[in-house]
Amino acid sequence: MQKKLATIALALALGIGYTISAFAQAKPDVLVKQRQAAMTLQGKYFGPLGLMNAGKLPFNADVVARNAALLDALSQMPWDGFTEDTKGEKSRAAPEIYGNAAGFKTAQDNFRGAVTKLVGASKSGEAAAKAAIGEVLNNCNSCHKNFRTQ
Amino acid sequence: MQKKLATIALALALGIGYTISAFAQAKPDVLVKQRQAAMTLQGKYFGPLGLMNAGKLPFNADVVARNAALLDALSQMPWDGFTEDTKGEKSRAAPEIYGNAAGFKTAQDNFRGAVTKLVGASKSGEAAAKAAIGEVLNNCNSCHKNFRTQ
Repeated sequence: MQKKLATIALALALGIGYTISAFAQAKPDVLVKQRQAAMTLQGKYFGPLGLMNAGKLPFNADVVARNAALLDALSQMPWDGFTEDTKGEKSRAAPEIYGNAAGFKTAQDNFRGAVTKLVGASKSGEAAAKAAIGEVLNNCNSCHKNFRTQ
Repeated sequence: MQKKLATIALALALGIGYTISAFAQAKPDVLVKQRQAAMTLQGKYFGPLGLMNAGKLPFNADVVARNAALLDALSQMPWDGFTEDTKGEKSRAAPEIYGNAAGFKTAQDNFRGAVTKLVGASKSGEAAAKAAIGEVLNNCNSCHKNFRTQ
């Protein structure tokens, strides 16, 4: 009974949408929502860094270090949402994600590597940080070009 | 010119929606989308822990430690999206967020504290981890009860 109450409390806490998926593999629409949420937040925290690199915002080492740490977590999150059973959902996922799964995995790994480098470079001064920001951006662009529909 | 190209590349990487908000304070609809994205991902990574605590999933210390670390990042993300200018956007944010701003801040801090404790407890065995999971869940429920519409 106590366990049942805890489960109900969990359902209430997380909302109905989650409840449905909680007791089995998440449903395709939930997986798409979650992976898009990760992309949205990567945009939130990478955006200011890209603008600093482009000279559109003043360089701020504290913001770069904080956002790099958050991106280190976020950059782990989208990938398990690209399951085969999400193919029928509305999204910008390109067929190449499934047709070239090895290439998609390499793109993920390269992006993760660039973010990890940024975490280190964010404590090494403006020039190093900006070079690392540029490398992350190149990985964003390259993966979107190859694996996202326009 | 090079800076302009970099800015265009950034815009392409992040998508049009982001571009609009990138050069000023993010627009209210973007802020709501970002804070909801953080809630979605908190659900993704807290969900399995809640189910372990409720006995609905086998306890897995590795998953608890990994998800706790990701929640440590995610739990920092929603709060700056609750700005006054988002009041007119469609969401479940309750008026008490603005009517009781101090209470909302306390709820955020309590939740952050519970997640930080979970990060430590996740390396201290099943009983400690489950107690910390329960405390995070209590904070989810309490904040949703007071600051989210039903």
